[in-house]
Amino acid sequence: MKKIRITLLLLIFIQSIIAQSTNHNSYNLMPWPKEITSGQGMYIIKEDFTISLSENSTNRLYDAATRFLRRLSGRTGVFFEEGFPQNTENTPSLMIKIDRVGELKLNEDESYKMTISNTGVQINSVTDIGALRGLETLLQLTTADNSFFYFPSVTIEDTPRFAWRGLMIDVARHYQPLDVIKRNLDAMAAVKLNVFHWHLTDDQGFRMESKSHPKLHELGSDGQYYTHEEIRDIIRYAGERGIRVIPELDVPGHASALLTAYPELGSKENQVYTIERYAGVFDPTLDPTNEKTYELLSDIFTEVAQLFPDPYVHIGGDENEGKHWDENPKIQDFKKKNALASNHDLQTHFNLRLQKILQKLNKKLVGWEEIMTPNMPTTAVIHSWRGVEEGLQPGESLIKAAKKGHYSILSTGYYIDRMHDITHHYLVDPLPKSSNLSKDERKKILGGEVTMWGELVTPLTIDSRIWPRTAAIAERFWSQASVTDLDHMRKRLSVLSFRLEELGLTHLKNRNVILRNIANGYDTDALMKLTQVCQPLQKYSRNKGGTEYKSYSPFTLFADACTTDSPDAYQFESLVNEFISSPKSSQKGIESMLFEWKENHEELLVLRGKTPLVSEILKLSSGLNDISAFFLRILDQEGVSKVDINEFNRLINNVKAPHADVEIAVSETFVKLFDHLKKNEL
Amino acid sequence: MKKIRITLLLLIFIQSIIAQSTNHNSYNLMPWPKEITSGQGMYIIKEDFTISLSENSTNRLYDAATRFLRRLSGRTGVFFEEGFPQNTENTPSLMIKIDRVGELKLNEDESYKMTISNTGVQINSVTDIGALRGLETLLQLTTADNSFFYFPSVTIEDTPRFAWRGLMIDVARHYQPLDVIKRNLDAMAAVKLNVFHWHLTDDQGFRMESKSHPKLHELGSDGQYYTHEEIRDIIRYAGERGIRVIPELDVPGHASALLTAYPELGSKENQVYTIERYAGVFDPTLDPTNEKTYELLSDIFTEVAQLFPDPYVHIGGDENEGKHWDENPKIQDFKKKNALASNHDLQTHFNLRLQKILQKLNKKLVGWEEIMTPNMPTTAVIHSWRGVEEGLQPGESLIKAAKKGHYSILSTGYYIDRMHDITHHYLVDPLPKSSNLSKDERKKILGGEVTMWGELVTPLTIDSRIWPRTAAIAERFWSQASVTDLDHMRKRLSVLSFRLEELGLTHLKNRNVILRNIANGYDTDALMKLTQVCQPLQKYSRNKGGTEYKSYSPFTLFADACTTDSPDAYQFESLVNEFISSPKSSQKGIESMLFEWKENHEELLVLRGKTPLVSEILKLSSGLNDISAFFLRILDQEGVSKVDINEFNRLINNVKAPHADVEIAVSETFVKLFDHLKKNEL
Repeated sequence: MKKIRITLLLLIFIQSIIAQSTNHNSYNLMPWPKEITSGQGMYIIKEDFTISLSENSTNRLYDAATRFLRRLSGRTGVFFEEGFPQNTENTPSLMIKIDRVGELKLNEDESYKMTISNTGVQINSVTDIGALRGLETLLQLTTADNSFFYFPSVTIEDTPRFAWRGLMIDVARHYQPLDVIKRNLDAMAAVKLNVFHWHLTDDQGFRMESKSHPKLHELGSDGQYYTHEEIRDIIRYAGERGIRVIPELDVPGHASALLTAYPELGSKENQVYTIERYAGVFDPTLDPTNEKTYELLSDIFTEVAQLFPDPYVHIGGDENEGKHWDENPKIQDFKKKNALASNHDLQTHFNLRLQKILQKLNKKLVGWEEIMTPNMPTTAVIHSWRGVEEGLQPGESLIKAAKKGHYSILSTGYYIDRMHDITHHYLVDPLPKSSNLSKDERKKILGGEVTMWGELVTPLTIDSRIWPRTAAIAERFWSQASVTDLDHMRKRLSVLSFRLEELGLTHLKNRNVILRNIANGYDTDALMKLTQVCQPLQKYSRNKGGTEYKSYSPFTLFADACTTDSPDAYQFESLVNEFISSPKSSQKGIESMLFEWKENHEELLVLRGKTPLVSEILKLSSGLNDISAFFLRILDQEGVSKVDINEFNRLINNVKAPHADVEIAVSETFVKLFDHLKKNEL
Repeated sequence: MKKIRITLLLLIFIQSIIAQSTNHNSYNLMPWPKEITSGQGMYIIKEDFTISLSENSTNRLYDAATRFLRRLSGRTGVFFEEGFPQNTENTPSLMIKIDRVGELKLNEDESYKMTISNTGVQINSVTDIGALRGLETLLQLTTADNSFFYFPSVTIEDTPRFAWRGLMIDVARHYQPLDVIKRNLDAMAAVKLNVFHWHLTDDQGFRMESKSHPKLHELGSDGQYYTHEEIRDIIRYAGERGIRVIPELDVPGHASALLTAYPELGSKENQVYTIERYAGVFDPTLDPTNEKTYELLSDIFTEVAQLFPDPYVHIGGDENEGKHWDENPKIQDFKKKNALASNHDLQTHFNLRLQKILQKLNKKLVGWEEIMTPNMPTTAVIHSWRGVEEGLQPGESLIKAAKKGHYSILSTGYYIDRMHDITHHYLVDPLPKSSNLSKDERKKILGGEVTMWGELVTPLTIDSRIWPRTAAIAERFWSQASVTDLDHMRKRLSVLSFRLEELGLTHLKNRNVILRNIANGYDTDALMKLTQVCQPLQKYSRNKGGTEYKSYSPFTLFADACTTDSPDAYQFESLVNEFISSPKSSQKGIESMLFEWKENHEELLVLRGKTPLVSEILKLSSGLNDISAFFLRILDQEGVSKVDINEFNRLINNVKAPHADVEIAVSETFVKLFDHLKKNEL
């Protein structure tokens, strides 16, 4: 009898472990929390759902809890009786207790604890900002079954790994209206990012209103700039979501727009500067030998200091090649007189002047890694961005900065405008095990920032470049280093992606807008299907040398409807891998995809002759159609002939050729599959 | 020989007439211009496209021409060399000449003339506002063939029929962020509407910041209000598009939010007022016998007068049932002392006080038709809104007002929130032939306004209620009375609908957002297909008595993804009509649709058990499935039996029953089809 009982208990125990691990995988949490324990049961979401806040609650928490109610109601369709949190209720569905008001500063406590049981949910945190992070986790736990929505019973203890978890948006190359910034702040909060780095100026635009030097925005922005009121509005909006705002005015290079307004501060004499319309690195540079330069900078950084409460200010400082300095004899004289051997030294001279201006304003300087010169005080934060493309090891400057005693932030590897797939970014760690830093040096690495450079994005497309990939990078910044399972990440990311739409993000829905324009009123299904196996050209090859696309070129093209991580390409690659490791097992799946691509091409042909916009797209589809037909034939035959090899080489070259700034994302998989067939069959 | 030549000429002449009328029908213009003549040839849109503006041009025209370039480039994918209009060029692609700056006032000249030839486009207008109207027409003329985009050669002379062409948006019931307002202003400009009527206050919210009485927005808006800066921003944005902005503060009724801040001005003593969460007509009313009421109103209307440049101010004045007046002895005394026989007279007393306040501020009063009492000065503009539902003839008050000497505006028939199909609204004419007014009286009818009441819309769904139907009503306001061809309207409207997306409108794309939420990650195709034959409950039956939906209820439901004018319902009705008039001719088409609905139901069943959100939706689909199977059977058989009749009655009752606040839009067509089969076959 006893034995049976033990066996039974063991069985129950094993079952509960199985249930737990199943549950575990079913939580669509991102970023993954530090500790999560599954419990028994669930809390059912019904009309009588209520929230109570501890008496020391804040407006920020009250508003966040109200937004939580709206989003929960929107997701579940449950009509809540109470639309707002209470301060008094005895037995709320959700009780939130905080110790104190959170401050918007580096290293503020963002931890929270959450317990969900059959009787309710409890969130406890040190700060209200921590409670906001918990509310996002709770929303992500919302689960449906046949008859109701519920929160599964769990216990979570969560805290971020890095203190600086940022998204940079470049609004200079293309202006982004307030609503674009706001919806991205909402999405940042949803994945627990806490720094919005606002790249406000560049060659293509000076986007901040200046009260002291109004010519800056009047002449330097085509009328597309943020007023002081609007900047305060964004800072307030971000603050309500526990997000700090770091402004960047990029100097002394990237200065075409600034110098359009104040050519007398440029390094080239008698130069007529104009707002730059192309992308790239340009020569217009502030004159570091002119005292008026520092007067202007002192004035605008004073405005910046008054507007932005955060102690950190980003001064850019990147990509100054000093061509105009070399060409200006006065600047050459200055270098000699001041014993500045190189342009590098001259820029250090400039940076130190700027550092003093900021110090007076009680601000700390952040700059791209080029500012890290021997004389730069270690109070400056180093923003690491260069990598293999620039002839450096990824993160090289990050480590160097930490060793020199600078705080530093990593963006190498997080350049999402380069259109790499998510695995490329997800596995980059700001603090990899291999980094070989001392404990103190490790503390110098504050975190990372995703960089959304704006040359090729407009309000129509920017969300589809930022999301959902940024959510996975946000997990890298928040979660433990050990969270690296790619399949699990992909699965959670695909759920998060459509959930982010409730915040107004357009990354999914605008794809069809672009396709409807291209199809000119005809059905878009076939175009949509084609996007699932295409990707825009990677790195910066879509805009060769930065001279193909001007800032006012159309970004409503097929390439703009395509994104990275094409789902059909991923599925096809998985099937081919399976096929190679265990022959024939997945042949049907492969054939079915090839057949679909062929069928889709037939449907696309309906658009031929209807609009000039489809001719290049048809070339993509045609190449895919031909090679699909080829594989359908040879998968069924015995052996691969010499004729087949020649045929394949011709077809794969067609598939590899980009059209409409887009490439077929399965060309390497085709090569892999053919190599396998060749090896096995010849 | 001569005879042959004449025949040949005749043939060419006839061919050109045919070509012309074909062309005519192919122009996707809305509103249809007053005069349009087709020419020979076209102007091809290439990279070298340029715009020149006459030297007296305005910033407004320069900005509009710049936006025109962006939209044209976005549509066509053509990379223009010049991104901005010029002032100097000799042979531009598009030359715009204006006589003078337009003023934002009633009856400003909005006419324009346009000539498109092989060598270029010319727009001439009296004012820059007229040129803006012409630019929208030109964009609508953009046509594609196989190899390029072009403007067809035409000559257009165009001018509006009515001077007041408005869209009212109620932002009180649900707050609408600035970007929602802005994209709707863009769309208004695209269809040549020129009045944005901003319904800023109601029981559910006081949405205008008040500097003189900040409690109004602090306590009356849940934090969702427009600052003065934001209001100025909207007025500027509208003005740049040639749109006047008319503010409405609705008094003395609809005052719950106002009285939440200032209960001492209410008509019921010792009443605790709160922001209303339900929809409907409520009792809270300003006390017209309290001098402090007028002091407050004088202060806020002074703010209004300072903010809004337009001479017209809307004071609401509707739906005051006077219940609280009746219950208050002091107010009863006041009526006696002042010989005010009825609450009607008391409200007139109130209105006249308000009229004096506005007069001092140099503003003209507009009010809903209830303000039209014998003592009301005829300077007040009457806004006609009541119709059959309120026991009146449509437009009754409009005619009455004109006869009394008031200027008047029609909204009866343009209540788009009632979810009628477009033909219902399109044929309502503010000045029907039957109106029997004198020439002078006819001049009193200024035009009309589409009213978008906000009880059931959020930023997610509001566009899909306003658009595309408002475009057809805009045609009613602009175009000649003779433009009434429903098929032609429908065809043009469907093109305009997806073209409007380039302005950021969400009426098409947000449907899938809602369905993705409902499907919880599963495929949305079957849900989408079902929306094509469903419609949300009409009139106000979706929200019976205004007590089903609170302002914070979810508006993310299947009903929110459905709209009027369901395309499959329209197609099915057409096929059935064809079938009835010429038996069997369209039976295959009918069967194919019935079969699709059956198939779609099978696909929808995949969602069963996956989320509670689909169970009601499946009832809709199930009813449609069953009746489709029934018709597929009896269409093929000879005769209709008694059993069939009973079966039909059971099935049609299922189809007629609404679920999830939605109804199948083809139930009447099913009845019609069955009646036909019964009559023919029994």
